[in-house]
Amino acid sequence: MSSYTIGLDLGGTNLRAAAFSADGQLLDQVARPTDVNSGREAVINNMVEAIDSLRRSFAHRQLLGVGIGVPGFIRLREGVIVGSNNLKPLEDFPLRDAISEKLGTSVILENDANAAALGEKWQGAGRAVNNLVMFTLGTGIGGGIIHHGRVMHGADGMAGELGHITVHPEGNPCDCGNRGCLEKHASAMALMSMAKLIRLGDDLTPVEIAHYAKQGDTRAIQVFESMGRALGIGLATVINTFNFPLYLLAGGLLPAWELFAPTMLAEVERRSFTFRNAHARIEQATLGNQAGLYGAAYLPHQPVEAD
Amino acid sequence: MSSYTIGLDLGGTNLRAAAFSADGQLLDQVARPTDVNSGREAVINNMVEAIDSLRRSFAHRQLLGVGIGVPGFIRLREGVIVGSNNLKPLEDFPLRDAISEKLGTSVILENDANAAALGEKWQGAGRAVNNLVMFTLGTGIGGGIIHHGRVMHGADGMAGELGHITVHPEGNPCDCGNRGCLEKHASAMALMSMAKLIRLGDDLTPVEIAHYAKQGDTRAIQVFESMGRALGIGLATVINTFNFPLYLLAGGLLPAWELFAPTMLAEVERRSFTFRNAHARIEQATLGNQAGLYGAAYLPHQPVEAD
Repeated sequence: MSSYTIGLDLGGTNLRAAAFSADGQLLDQVARPTDVNSGREAVINNMVEAIDSLRRSFAHRQLLGVGIGVPGFIRLREGVIVGSNNLKPLEDFPLRDAISEKLGTSVILENDANAAALGEKWQGAGRAVNNLVMFTLGTGIGGGIIHHGRVMHGADGMAGELGHITVHPEGNPCDCGNRGCLEKHASAMALMSMAKLIRLGDDLTPVEIAHYAKQGDTRAIQVFESMGRALGIGLATVINTFNFPLYLLAGGLLPAWELFAPTMLAEVERRSFTFRNAHARIEQATLGNQAGLYGAAYLPHQPVEAD
Repeated sequence: MSSYTIGLDLGGTNLRAAAFSADGQLLDQVARPTDVNSGREAVINNMVEAIDSLRRSFAHRQLLGVGIGVPGFIRLREGVIVGSNNLKPLEDFPLRDAISEKLGTSVILENDANAAALGEKWQGAGRAVNNLVMFTLGTGIGGGIIHHGRVMHGADGMAGELGHITVHPEGNPCDCGNRGCLEKHASAMALMSMAKLIRLGDDLTPVEIAHYAKQGDTRAIQVFESMGRALGIGLATVINTFNFPLYLLAGGLLPAWELFAPTMLAEVERRSFTFRNAHARIEQATLGNQAGLYGAAYLPHQPVEAD
């Protein structure tokens, strides 16, 4: 009997679940509303129902386990979410064990940015390596570090918070208490703030700013160059720290690559002797918003190790 | 027959070698001039002679292997030093195999800052943890990252170059091509430059600057506060990246701890939400300049793993 796993990507609005063969082929996928306003039990039922609907389709195969990617920190030993802005009703609750009990199968939780990095390692741009760092450029900036093929968690499941690398010590204030965090200078929110600050427009989306930049608007171009510089400063620090062979960028801002990447790469080239002397590549992730699903489904293939 | 290992710490001027029991007791230690001006063969002979003299003393025990800490990058698979300012005659030469052949025992090379971090993990301030980051504050700043009890090497043996984290993007120029590297704002050389810049004195050593600071000289105090700020910025980034339980400071500037640490810790507290929310400690290393010897001697207990 051939085996498979199920990955679930839990967002604040929607959840997606997919079945994958052991060699990483996506077999089937379903989506549901998360329905977080109806409370914890409703969310859990939606998750279990999505997983069960896949399980019914693959009754002829052996389910190895279920992996779930969630936004927020996770206490790995307990399988509990802590600190999730979008999923407050699920916090400080034994989510892993609750779902595992309802399903009667093993369940592993993982932070969504970590899961996305792991997905790229399994079936995306990182297939050829065992060590990579991924930055997810969205509303904020998430990070995932893969070392020896596994997610690096740190002592409290908080490792890889690369959006909070300091790139401008006296830069923009961040909710985390720091100033000049990478995500305050290179995320979608940062682009929108910059566009407002330089009077390009008050409520411009990154897509609109990119549109202006592509039409040659100097201020819009500068917004993306500023983003590129911040990314370059952060990447140089990360490359000098890890000397990994691969650094991936992912997320909603990736379509603007041509607008920020030249400045970013020039900054890294200048700032990182490791980058100049080692065999490092900086590339775009390839799985798009499916990366987290892939990574979640890969989790049952590699049980959590002790730190 | 009880077993033992030998660690050798190769400096540009002197080399030290020591025999250690399997449980980390230092059994005996010897020192020799490195004699690098006499060329490669002379250095190798000095190393082999030091190791052999220890081996003669412990002929009744079984030698498990020899570990050697060297300043510079190492191509681990080949056991070759590349990029060592103090040991040019040894570069691009199969040093590991040459010494192994002369001794008839297995030899492992490691970067000296990595070896020092590993030594602290084995028998120093890091004994209770498997994950730590160590900064060695000397003429420059070296770094070592221990993950799951092992040195993190990266793809080219260049991981852990924490002296080249960017703390001030428009700060002091560094030989590496970057501006504002941590070691340009928090090393012994940085302290001396700052003292000169603010006209405290032209050729003051860190000990002299510390002396003025302890006597209440405002400018001297500011030099160490500036160092503390730079360290705090760098530490916050490292803590947000790794979420490890322990961060160690070591090296020749450690006696000035009381002068820079308060500013450093306040900066970390403010800048790192991971530090505020996780179980992280920032402490002084305890093995002093013996840490590299300990780490070198620990290497034969943990053969190099594949990346």
